[in-house]
Amino acid sequence: MVDIATRVYNHKWKIDPIVRSLIDTDFYKLLMCQSIFRNHPNATVTFSLINRSKDIRLADLIDEGELREQLDHIRSLSLSRGESTWLRGNTFYGKRQMFRSDFMEWFEALRLPAYHLEVKDGQYELTFEGAWPEVMLWEIPALSVLMELRSRAVLKHMGRFELQVLYARGMTKLWSKIEKLQTLNKLKLADFGTRRRHSFLWQDWCVQAMSEGLGSNFIGTSNCLIAMRREVEAIGTNAHELPMVYSALAQSDAALKQAPYDVLADWQEEHDGNLRIILPDTYGTQGFLDDAPDWLAGWTGMRIDSGDPAEGAERAIAWWKARGEDPLEKLVIFSDGLDVDKIITLQNQFADRVKVSFGWGTLMTNDFRGLVPDKALQPFSLVCKAIAVNGRPTVKLSDNPNKAMGPQSEIERYKSVFGVGSQKAEDVLV
Amino acid sequence: MVDIATRVYNHKWKIDPIVRSLIDTDFYKLLMCQSIFRNHPNATVTFSLINRSKDIRLADLIDEGELREQLDHIRSLSLSRGESTWLRGNTFYGKRQMFRSDFMEWFEALRLPAYHLEVKDGQYELTFEGAWPEVMLWEIPALSVLMELRSRAVLKHMGRFELQVLYARGMTKLWSKIEKLQTLNKLKLADFGTRRRHSFLWQDWCVQAMSEGLGSNFIGTSNCLIAMRREVEAIGTNAHELPMVYSALAQSDAALKQAPYDVLADWQEEHDGNLRIILPDTYGTQGFLDDAPDWLAGWTGMRIDSGDPAEGAERAIAWWKARGEDPLEKLVIFSDGLDVDKIITLQNQFADRVKVSFGWGTLMTNDFRGLVPDKALQPFSLVCKAIAVNGRPTVKLSDNPNKAMGPQSEIERYKSVFGVGSQKAEDVLV
Repeated sequence: MVDIATRVYNHKWKIDPIVRSLIDTDFYKLLMCQSIFRNHPNATVTFSLINRSKDIRLADLIDEGELREQLDHIRSLSLSRGESTWLRGNTFYGKRQMFRSDFMEWFEALRLPAYHLEVKDGQYELTFEGAWPEVMLWEIPALSVLMELRSRAVLKHMGRFELQVLYARGMTKLWSKIEKLQTLNKLKLADFGTRRRHSFLWQDWCVQAMSEGLGSNFIGTSNCLIAMRREVEAIGTNAHELPMVYSALAQSDAALKQAPYDVLADWQEEHDGNLRIILPDTYGTQGFLDDAPDWLAGWTGMRIDSGDPAEGAERAIAWWKARGEDPLEKLVIFSDGLDVDKIITLQNQFADRVKVSFGWGTLMTNDFRGLVPDKALQPFSLVCKAIAVNGRPTVKLSDNPNKAMGPQSEIERYKSVFGVGSQKAEDVLV
Repeated sequence: MVDIATRVYNHKWKIDPIVRSLIDTDFYKLLMCQSIFRNHPNATVTFSLINRSKDIRLADLIDEGELREQLDHIRSLSLSRGESTWLRGNTFYGKRQMFRSDFMEWFEALRLPAYHLEVKDGQYELTFEGAWPEVMLWEIPALSVLMELRSRAVLKHMGRFELQVLYARGMTKLWSKIEKLQTLNKLKLADFGTRRRHSFLWQDWCVQAMSEGLGSNFIGTSNCLIAMRREVEAIGTNAHELPMVYSALAQSDAALKQAPYDVLADWQEEHDGNLRIILPDTYGTQGFLDDAPDWLAGWTGMRIDSGDPAEGAERAIAWWKARGEDPLEKLVIFSDGLDVDKIITLQNQFADRVKVSFGWGTLMTNDFRGLVPDKALQPFSLVCKAIAVNGRPTVKLSDNPNKAMGPQSEIERYKSVFGVGSQKAEDVLV
């Protein structure tokens, strides 16, 4: 039987909204938002969309009117009662009431601030300027909307069974990856794919398939809405955004040099255990570790998000040993450009020497490579970053110069302050 | 929203019925049934299930209680008003009112007769004995039920996403075949896969996918119910059943020798055009053609259902030429053990010399090879044949001795009457 009510209800929507909830976002954005809300609520930050894949001309593919409709819809969203209850009542990493009442009250009243959209050279210039805790929440929904509008642009000319077969092939492809991962006994793997997902429904399917296929070896998803609905763990800690903005706020080179550690000192006041994860590569991992205060060696783990991942893990292990820590008690989280073969290699290489987990992103939630002609659904490298703070540019150096950001003169200054020498460039595919 | 009514309604079924309609059968069974109803309504015929794949122990795989429930359910079916209207009102092969009123009145009142079921050596001995026009309608539903119960037996231990991925892989596999077939411009291909289908829903999906993927090159399905629902052509003509029973009814060797031509003489009284298709291989194609009356050369085409298909087509073309007919006006229908590569080869080999069409069966509607471990869903060779008429055994020789049937002494007698010499054995996979 046709469910007439559902069909009529669906036709009442003016658009098919891509983002339907303020918690359809990464868990670490909310953790960082709370930290920012406490420590830097009044910093004025500009977030900007950056398409590193220039050959994907998004403004040619995606209609501006449709994009505005989707962004306007996101501005109409507010936290629902059930979402608020879930955030307030849930246990995250074994801890209850991770979100403070003052933060939750602020979040319950929040609507996302205005956006600024222009077209230039076939690309969208999409920026968000305002109070840091507000504009930072645009990052993930803005990326999700652009990724999914691009998918829709490619899919709109396909037939019904052609579409069904496309998804059949996508499912087959992911399941084959899952079958490979089933060979790893002690795997710990989470979904980090919200920002580059093919679509919301596809990410939701992928998470459920991973849950069934990997059982407890699938430890959760970074997506809060999916974590809530599918009753899996919400996973995440912190990101480059924090040291980038703290650094831009620094008033001297000495303060700049200290900024990345200030971030973690603030973090340590709020979080313990599995949330104490160092992200060391914002201004070069080696210098960061060499100059790190001893209390950082007591943290739970390190996330390797750029550069050669095996080198990064070796560097972490060596550092812990040098600081008198037992690597077997420490956690390395790999999260940069992973696919299943790389996951298997890294797991086999490090599982006996350190605790290992994986944050698998784009090639879990958006791998339709080879399934349509002309690479039309090829994943690409779209990011949304804090580019300015109180009128001053931000800088990221990374362990991969292809991921560096900021004006050249500022990059040089940061390299000098943080003692970063020559770096090895790696392709950024996703 | 959950459609509560549908969900509650579905739970009211005692079983999940596999065959839900008397026209969930092959179109040629209905054409032959009408001919039998007119010419031999009182012959007592025994149909019997024959599993040529002895290594598939059906009685170990399928619960006898479940099998009986399914067969009992089929006995509760009668022609619905809409089905009757469709049979009475439809145009088949350009002809209206193909089914006569007296036949339709009989069919509307029909319930399928009793069955006899025993277990022997891990196999089901399933037989149907009674008036020919009634028992002959058991063939297709009996096969469909056994095939689908076997599928269900394999699937019942699989998880939800594992199942979804299995079907995703099946869809991917069929669509890849469709993409290969899209390279053939003048293809004419029909679904002949009812009897060996993985399941009803799967056949229904395959037909729809073929319709979208091949457009007008997909000419229809042998399944009447799917043809009705999906508004495609119902396809089929006649089968070995007719000459086998006519031959068993023959009272002398001379009458036996004539029996296969008597079948076609009766057929010719009722049908013309595309329904005049010779099936020449029941007692060896070469002898049949050599001794055929001239009026048969005027028929529209020939179906090649055993032996090497290219040899069969060459033999047909040579025969038409020898009888003064233009092969370019004639139709060759390939229907034996086809898969996509064989279809492409035969199309390229014969499309310029004769009209060609294909009846694609098992490897269209039941190709899950390689998609589950241990070949658990491998298609196998299950048939349901007329084995006795008025107490006398039937015989089939075929062009492939592996498809021969009947007591050895009768096979020898038939070989002698029809002048069949040595034959080349070919594996029967499906």
